[in-house]
Amino acid sequence: MYFGSDNTSGAAPEVMAALVRANAGYERSYGADAAMGLVTALVREIFDAPKAEVRLVATGTAANALAIASYCPPWGAVFCHSHAHIAVDECGAPEFYSGAKLVLVPGNRGKMTPETLAAALPGVVEGDVHSVQRGMLSLTNVTEAGTVYSPAEIADLTSLARANGMPCHLDGARFANALVATGASPADLTWRAGIDVLSLGGTKNGCLGVEAVVVFDPAKAWELELRRKRGGHLASKHRFLSAQMEAYLTDGLWLRLAAEANAMGQRLASGLRAKGVMVPEAPANMLFPAWPTGTHDRLEAAGAVFSRIPTSDGLERARLVTSWSTTAEDVDAFLAAL
Amino acid sequence: MYFGSDNTSGAAPEVMAALVRANAGYERSYGADAAMGLVTALVREIFDAPKAEVRLVATGTAANALAIASYCPPWGAVFCHSHAHIAVDECGAPEFYSGAKLVLVPGNRGKMTPETLAAALPGVVEGDVHSVQRGMLSLTNVTEAGTVYSPAEIADLTSLARANGMPCHLDGARFANALVATGASPADLTWRAGIDVLSLGGTKNGCLGVEAVVVFDPAKAWELELRRKRGGHLASKHRFLSAQMEAYLTDGLWLRLAAEANAMGQRLASGLRAKGVMVPEAPANMLFPAWPTGTHDRLEAAGAVFSRIPTSDGLERARLVTSWSTTAEDVDAFLAAL
Amino acid sequence: MYFGSDNTSGAAPEVMAALVRANAGYERSYGADAAMGLVTALVREIFDAPKAEVRLVATGTAANALAIASYCPPWGAVFCHSHAHIAVDECGAPEFYSGAKLVLVPGNRGKMTPETLAAALPGVVEGDVHSVQRGMLSLTNVTEAGTVYSPAEIADLTSLARANGMPCHLDGARFANALVATGASPADLTWRAGIDVLSLGGTKNGCLGVEAVVVFDPAKAWELELRRKRGGHLASKHRFLSAQMEAYLTDGLWLRLAAEANAMGQRLASGLRAKGVMVPEAPANMLFPAWPTGTHDRLEAAGAVFSRIPTSDGLERARLVTSWSTTAEDVDAFLAAL
Amino acid sequence: MYFGSDNTSGAAPEVMAALVRANAGYERSYGADAAMGLVTALVREIFDAPKAEVRLVATGTAANALAIASYCPPWGAVFCHSHAHIAVDECGAPEFYSGAKLVLVPGNRGKMTPETLAAALPGVVEGDVHSVQRGMLSLTNVTEAGTVYSPAEIADLTSLARANGMPCHLDGARFANALVATGASPADLTWRAGIDVLSLGGTKNGCLGVEAVVVFDPAKAWELELRRKRGGHLASKHRFLSAQMEAYLTDGLWLRLAAEANAMGQRLASGLRAKGVMVPEAPANMLFPAWPTGTHDRLEAAGAVFSRIPTSDGLERARLVTSWSTTAEDVDAFLAAL
Repeated sequence: MYFGSDNTSGAAPEVMAALVRANAGYERSYGADAAMGLVTALVREIFDAPKAEVRLVATGTAANALAIASYCPPWGAVFCHSHAHIAVDECGAPEFYSGAKLVLVPGNRGKMTPETLAAALPGVVEGDVHSVQRGMLSLTNVTEAGTVYSPAEIADLTSLARANGMPCHLDGARFANALVATGASPADLTWRAGIDVLSLGGTKNGCLGVEAVVVFDPAKAWELELRRKRGGHLASKHRFLSAQMEAYLTDGLWLRLAAEANAMGQRLASGLRAKGVMVPEAPANMLFPAWPTGTHDRLEAAGAVFSRIPTSDGLERARLVTSWSTTAEDVDAFLAAL
Repeated sequence: MYFGSDNTSGAAPEVMAALVRANAGYERSYGADAAMGLVTALVREIFDAPKAEVRLVATGTAANALAIASYCPPWGAVFCHSHAHIAVDECGAPEFYSGAKLVLVPGNRGKMTPETLAAALPGVVEGDVHSVQRGMLSLTNVTEAGTVYSPAEIADLTSLARANGMPCHLDGARFANALVATGASPADLTWRAGIDVLSLGGTKNGCLGVEAVVVFDPAKAWELELRRKRGGHLASKHRFLSAQMEAYLTDGLWLRLAAEANAMGQRLASGLRAKGVMVPEAPANMLFPAWPTGTHDRLEAAGAVFSRIPTSDGLERARLVTSWSTTAEDVDAFLAAL
Repeated sequence: MYFGSDNTSGAAPEVMAALVRANAGYERSYGADAAMGLVTALVREIFDAPKAEVRLVATGTAANALAIASYCPPWGAVFCHSHAHIAVDECGAPEFYSGAKLVLVPGNRGKMTPETLAAALPGVVEGDVHSVQRGMLSLTNVTEAGTVYSPAEIADLTSLARANGMPCHLDGARFANALVATGASPADLTWRAGIDVLSLGGTKNGCLGVEAVVVFDPAKAWELELRRKRGGHLASKHRFLSAQMEAYLTDGLWLRLAAEANAMGQRLASGLRAKGVMVPEAPANMLFPAWPTGTHDRLEAAGAVFSRIPTSDGLERARLVTSWSTTAEDVDAFLAAL
Repeated sequence: MYFGSDNTSGAAPEVMAALVRANAGYERSYGADAAMGLVTALVREIFDAPKAEVRLVATGTAANALAIASYCPPWGAVFCHSHAHIAVDECGAPEFYSGAKLVLVPGNRGKMTPETLAAALPGVVEGDVHSVQRGMLSLTNVTEAGTVYSPAEIADLTSLARANGMPCHLDGARFANALVATGASPADLTWRAGIDVLSLGGTKNGCLGVEAVVVFDPAKAWELELRRKRGGHLASKHRFLSAQMEAYLTDGLWLRLAAEANAMGQRLASGLRAKGVMVPEAPANMLFPAWPTGTHDRLEAAGAVFSRIPTSDGLERARLVTSWSTTAEDVDAFLAAL
C-alpha cells in the first residue's frame, strides 16, 4: 500500500529491459549516441512538431531549471502558482539557474486562472527599471493539487502571458497523466496551447531517472545544451538516458503506464467516496482526501504509506499518489483498512 | 578497438545486475533508500574514515562543481592545473556553482609541482580586496595526461595549500585507476595526504552514471546536500544511484575493474614501445603516443576509435584510453593495425 | 511643492561644504582615507558599539544587497514585508548578490507582526532539502508605508527570527527619520533590539549619495568588504563618500535634518486632517492620503509633484514625502492648492 | 610628490563647481535629471555617434562588469590581457556580473597582439559543449603598462574577434589619456575601430567618481540599464553623476586635464632618461622605470609616494602615475630627489 509518491515505484519492465539492452558494446558519449536520434524523432512525431529539439537530463528539477533559464533573463519574473513545484520543492534551483524571481499566483486547487494571473501582473512593472520585468509563465500539468488544465485553459493563460511579452513553460513531471486525464493530444496540450518549452517527465511514470526538455523553437537548443553542460547535467554515458526515454515513448508505453496510474487513482477515489470520504475532484493519479488524525494513524498502522498535510479545520489531508505499479489489490486493501 | 574514452564502455555486469535487483518493489526516494546507508558504510570502511559523509550524483562535472562550491567562497581562487578537467572540459560549471575563479598552474604532463604552485600563489594577493582570495586547491588523479600523483606528491601540494589557508579537492574521476597504479590505499591517497573533499568516480570505471562526493569533515554534508538539490542533482529514484555505487564498492569490484583497465593500458604501452613508438610514462589507463597523421588515418581506417591532438612538432598525438571492458584482443588488434 | 521623494532634494549645505573641503590635496584611495577612520569612530560612538565595522557605498540598493548577501546563504529565505523596498524596488538586486529567495510577509501599513511572521515561517521547512532554508529577517524602518517600528516591536520580530536561527537586517534608508519619530537611541533601534546589520541611509536625508553598511559583529567585515569590491561598489576616490558621511554624522546634523523633514511631514498631516482628509498615521516624513482623481489633477496643475497610487475603492492615494529641504511655505502652498 | 595613482588626486575645480551648481533646487532622480540628457548629447557629438546610449555609474569596476555582462553570455569566454584590470584588480566583479570566464592573453607591456590573441583562441572550442564559448574581447587603453593601442592596432584585434563572433569592449578608465597620447579621435579609437561598448573613465582624470558606459548599439541600452539597477549602481540623486560628466565633457575639459597629466608624465620620463634611468616607452601618464631598492627607499624618505613592483632581475620597478593635478614642481622635485 505505497501511496507516498510515484517516485517510490521502480522502473517499468520495458524500460529496464531497454536499459539492459543498451549496455551492449561501445557507444558514443555525451548525447551523440544513436538512441538519442530516435528519441528526438519520437518526440517530433508524437508532438507533431518536426523541428522540436530535445535534451535529456536525470531529474525534474534540472529540467525545470534549465527550461526556465533558457527563456527568462536574470531580471525576469516567472509567474507560477503559489504551490508550484518550482516555487516550493526545488530549493531555489530555478532561481539559481536563471537568476529570475518567482512571482506567486494564487488559485484554487493548484490552478491559476486568467483572473488571478491578470491580478498578479501589475506587481511587475514592465519598463520600470526598479521592478523586475515580465519574464515567463510557468504552469504545471498535472498540477501539484492533482487537478489538470485543459488545452483551452492553458491557451487562455498563455495568451495572456504572450500579450504581456512572456514565453510559457509547462512543468510536465506528470505530463502523461495529464494527457490521459484530459484525452488531449500532446500537441494540443503544449505548443498548440502556447507552450514554448516543456519539461516532459519520465521518472515518476516508469523510468529510472530521465526527463526531457522539449523546445519547440529549435533556435533555443544550443543555449539549452550549453546550460545543461554548465549545470553538470550532460550525462557521460548518455545512452542510458536515451534508452529509457526511447522505450518510454515507443508504442505508447508512456500512455499505458499513465493510464494504469490514473485508473488506480480513480478506483481509489471512487472507493473513498463510496465510504463517504469527501475527495476533491482529481482526475489523474493524486488525491487529497481529508480525515481525522486517528484515521491516519490507523491506516499507517495497517501498513499504508502516504503523506500527511495538516489543514486548518482540524483534520489532516492525505496525499495519495498512485503509479504505474499500483495494483487494484493495493487500492482495495487501503480501502479495507480505512 | 575502442580507445576513445572509458565513457564509451558500458556498465560492468555486476553493476547492471545490481541495478536490476534494485528495481524490485517500492523504495524511499531522494536519498533515503536503504542502499544509500550501505554506500556510506562502504565508503567509511574503505577510506578508514568513520565520519566521512557521501552524496551521490550522476555526473563527474556535478561532483566537481558541488565539491568546489561547498569549500570555496565566491571570491576565492581555485588553483588547478592548466589542463584540469574543471578548467577546460566543464563549460564553466565550477564557476557557475561556486562563483570562484580558476587560476591555472602549469606543470609537465598534467601535474603541478610545489614549485609551479608556489609560483602561482603570489598572483592572488591574500588580504588585498582588489584581488580574489586564496580559495582552494584542486588536483586530479589520474591526471588528464594519464600520469598519477603519489600520496607524497599530493601531501606536498596540500601542505603548501594548507599553509596558505586553502582546503583541497581531488577530482577522482579515475580514482580507482590511480589507486591501482600507485598501490596506495584510499586513505593514503586522500585525507591522509591532505584532501578534504573527493570526487569519487564510478561512471568511467564500470557504472552507468554515478559519482560520489566524499567529504571527510561531516560538518560540510548539509551544505553539500543543499547545493546538490539546488543544482537539480538530487535523484528522485535515488536507489538507482545507490545500487550502482554499492555494487561498485562491494568486494573490491571497483579495484578489479580498474586493474583490468590499467593492465590493458600497460599492455598497449608495452606493445607500442616494442614497435618503437615513444609513449610517455603513463601508469594507468590513458596513453598519449604521437605519430604521423598518415598513421592516424591508417588506424582509423582499420576501425580504431581514439582522439587526435595536434602537436607543435608536426605529429599528431593520439589519446588512447582503455577501460574495464577493453580486451587483450582489442589491444593486440590495434598494435597489429599500427 | 516637491513631495515626490526625498531623493529629489539636493544635499544639505554642511554636507556639500564638507565635500568641497575634502577635495584639497592628495588622499589615499579605496577606503584608506583618513576621513573613513573618523566615520567609523563616529558610528561606534553614536551606536554605542565600540567594535562595529562600517563600509560605505553610494546607493541604498547596494547597501541592502551587500548586507543580505553577507549574512544569508544562497539557499536561504529572506523574510521581508511584501511591500519591502528589497522586494519590489530593487530589480532583484538582493537575489543577485545573495542568491537567496525573498519570502513575502504580509502586514498592515508596511509592518509585519510576530503573528504574520510566524505564519510565514512554516512555508520554509528547515531541514527539508527540497525547501530553501530559514536565512534572514529583513525589516525596514521607516517602513515603505511611512509607519515606524518601535524598539520593542523590532525586538519581538528579531527574537522570533533568532529563535528560528536567522540573523536580522534593518533597511534604514530613512533610519534618521525613524530615530526622530520614535525618540529611540540608535543602539536601541538596532543591535539592542536584535539587529545584526544595518543599512544606514544618508542619501535621502541630505547627502549626495552615500549609505553605510554597519555590521555589529566585526568578524563579518572582511566578507562584506570583498563583496563590496566584487560588486563594483568600492569607490576609488573614497574620500568623497567619507566626507559626506562624516559631515552627516557630526554634531547631530543627520538628526537635525531628519527632524526638519519629519516636522514638515507632520505639518502637512495636520493641515490635511484639518481639511478633513483622512491621513493614515505616519509619524515620520511620508504620508499616504487618498482623494479623488480630480483632486490629484488639480494639485498637479498647481505645480505639486508627488506620486499617485491607485486604490481599490476608486480613489487614488498620494505618496507625499517631505525632506530636510521642505519648507513650511511648500507645505502651506500645497494645502492651499488642495 | 604623489605618483601613487591618479585616483589619489581630487576633482578638477570645474567639476567641483559644476557639482555645487547642480545642488540647487529639486531634480528628478534615477537618471531622469535634465543634465543626463546633456551628457548623452555630448557623448553622441564627441563620438560622432548619434545613436549611442550612455549610462553613468560611480566606479570603473562597475562600468567594466556591466559592459561585459551586457554583451557576453554566462558561458562565454572574455579574452583579455593577462594583466588586465578586469582580470587582476576587480576581485572577480566581471565574472560575478556576467558569469563568464576570463581567458588571459599574453603580450609585451600590457598589449595583446593579433598573434597572441590568435594563439589563445583555440583554447576555447566554439561549438564544443564541453568548452566555454567565444564570448567577447576586452582591451584596455591606456593599458595597465602605460602603453597605448593605436586605432589600427585596435581594429586589427577587433577584426579578429569579430571574425570569431565576438563583440568588443574597451576599458577606457584612462581613455582621455589615450586620446591625447594617440592624437586619435574618440570615434577612431572606439566604434570605427570595432569597439561595441566603452567604459569611459572620469574618476581618474578629474572627476570625483563617475564613469560612463557607452553602447554604440542603442538596442543594448535597456539590458544595460536593468543590469545597472540590479547591481545597485543606479544612483538615486543621479544629478550628481550627470553634473560631473557634463562638466568633464564640456568644452574639452577632459582632454585638457588628460593633456596636463600626459605632459607631466612625459616631463618625468624625459627627466629620468636624462639621468640615465631606462624608462620603457609609455606615452601617457604611467611610467614603469626600475632601480635598486635603495633608490626606492631614498625617494620615499624624500616624501615621494608611488608603488613598487618587484622584478625578477633584483631591481624593483616603480609605478609612477601623473594626473591632472601633478605640477612641474612635483616632477622636478622627484627628479631632484632621485
